[in-house]
Amino acid sequence: MRAVTIPAPGGPDVLRVEDRPDPAPGRSDVVISVAAAGVNRADLHQREGNYPPPDRSPDWPGLEVSGTIAAVGDAVADWKPGDRVCALLPGGGYAELAAVPAGLVLPVPEVVDLTDAAGLPEAMCTVWSTVFMSADLRSGETLLVHGGSGGIGTMAIQLARAIGCRVAVTAGTDEKLEACRALGADILINYRDQDFVEIVLAATDGRGADVILDAIGGGYLDRNLRALAPHGRIELIGNQSGVPGELSIGRLMAKWGTVRASTLRARPLANKEKIVASVLANAWPLVASKQVRPIIDRSFPFEEARRAHEAMESGDRIGKLLLVP
Amino acid sequence: MRAVTIPAPGGPDVLRVEDRPDPAPGRSDVVISVAAAGVNRADLHQREGNYPPPDRSPDWPGLEVSGTIAAVGDAVADWKPGDRVCALLPGGGYAELAAVPAGLVLPVPEVVDLTDAAGLPEAMCTVWSTVFMSADLRSGETLLVHGGSGGIGTMAIQLARAIGCRVAVTAGTDEKLEACRALGADILINYRDQDFVEIVLAATDGRGADVILDAIGGGYLDRNLRALAPHGRIELIGNQSGVPGELSIGRLMAKWGTVRASTLRARPLANKEKIVASVLANAWPLVASKQVRPIIDRSFPFEEARRAHEAMESGDRIGKLLLVP
Repeated sequence: MRAVTIPAPGGPDVLRVEDRPDPAPGRSDVVISVAAAGVNRADLHQREGNYPPPDRSPDWPGLEVSGTIAAVGDAVADWKPGDRVCALLPGGGYAELAAVPAGLVLPVPEVVDLTDAAGLPEAMCTVWSTVFMSADLRSGETLLVHGGSGGIGTMAIQLARAIGCRVAVTAGTDEKLEACRALGADILINYRDQDFVEIVLAATDGRGADVILDAIGGGYLDRNLRALAPHGRIELIGNQSGVPGELSIGRLMAKWGTVRASTLRARPLANKEKIVASVLANAWPLVASKQVRPIIDRSFPFEEARRAHEAMESGDRIGKLLLVP
Repeated sequence: MRAVTIPAPGGPDVLRVEDRPDPAPGRSDVVISVAAAGVNRADLHQREGNYPPPDRSPDWPGLEVSGTIAAVGDAVADWKPGDRVCALLPGGGYAELAAVPAGLVLPVPEVVDLTDAAGLPEAMCTVWSTVFMSADLRSGETLLVHGGSGGIGTMAIQLARAIGCRVAVTAGTDEKLEACRALGADILINYRDQDFVEIVLAATDGRGADVILDAIGGGYLDRNLRALAPHGRIELIGNQSGVPGELSIGRLMAKWGTVRASTLRARPLANKEKIVASVLANAWPLVASKQVRPIIDRSFPFEEARRAHEAMESGDRIGKLLLVP
């Protein structure tokens, strides 16, 4: 089979399309004939040599795919060849075939295009495990999402709206903010010339956001804390600012606030399976009912993986980028 | 009635014993004839003028008392004059009589001395609401408590041991550490010449503490994070260090960690009543069964309130300090 590989760490131009042996399913695995693979920021870190794949995972990138089941392991009862699926992977999604534990596979509803479905697993599981499972966002509360127009952001807006929340978003252009508005965001903040603290407080009668989902990290921590409501929860899923945060303990105490941080990829398998099961039971029905859909910016053939990574790095997109074999 | 008042902000010598009108119970209040009042660090801040009492609370300090019910409001059915009780107060405990909402009152079991019971409410509600209700410490997990020999620390050791946890404590003298050991602490750390990160990691096979209860705050934040186990929870209840913390987002992400901060005093009444109800249902039986008891260092008469505050500031004590009318 063909795979998009990283022969040596470096910029987007190191990516190559190479032949690799077809994977065989382990006892509890399925093998997916890949329709598309989602591109994630972690893939860029892996390409740069800063995010080695977990043990026993293929050494080429790719944290999510969609496609049809090609083969199943002996212990797999829930899936059969031909099923339309998408899945969360520890790695190795940039390939024509991908083996994955059956507990990380989700069925693709008929209303969703099979290729587009590759944009669902990582964003859905990240948002669900943080904003909902950990922070327990409730109907009537306000969610602030930084980077509202990206893969995570577009998913968070849709999920929060579907359960009846107000959603505030930041983005860097009016076009991106308009896309967020179209998905249901209520409070639009252009971070280039507006102060999100001021706008969120003004839009909530001074109360602030109940939950904040943020991948900027240290550079935003103090401002996130100022924009937080009493009993608010800050969920950190990245540190794109690259700096540690200054945490005012007094301010956090006065709000009975919570700061939590997590990665999805490094979680043990059992933990990921628990997240996928919760997604399937609680969030997946919103996909079948079209309240939540994958927002796809562009798809690139494997041969143009370099351009896909360049597009990811530029930030010039709305929703997800995909690679198609 | 007599009360220990703060005619003007300042050092321990500003405290005076003065006459104040007897309080009358509101519809949902009880009035307690005070046997003893607990001394808390917040009382020192209030004396210095840095922690004003909440609205409609007396202007003299005191966050907890024990005693007997002297009168009850019209809507109070659960308590009657003569009942032995202790209670959490928004303020005003340094007096012969104290009015308090009935939902903040706890019965004093026969096995507990009525005066000593004044040392229970604040420490029990603080530890219960943070380590148990928020951080959900479970049997088999490891708790690290900074300042193990203080009022909060001695309570945390006993509660955590009673539910089957390992307990690590820091303290500044071997005598204090010995007192912690006698209460059930397993891992003893003299912070003056030992590194708590190193010792906690060594004692847990490199895993770290599942829950950390800390009032030092910013100055300990990074080291707390290093000593934290995967999925660990840091509960901050003070910032005695007086500095903001530097929060390494990457380190917190890699551990799926949580940092939470809270105050007990400033919570709305309904929230405090919920905590008291949870204490009564879940932790209070451990007092009746003698698994948890108030650890009292010394009691001072009202006239010696100055000495009580000096002793609180010096840190030279094991357990709680009380004031007796």
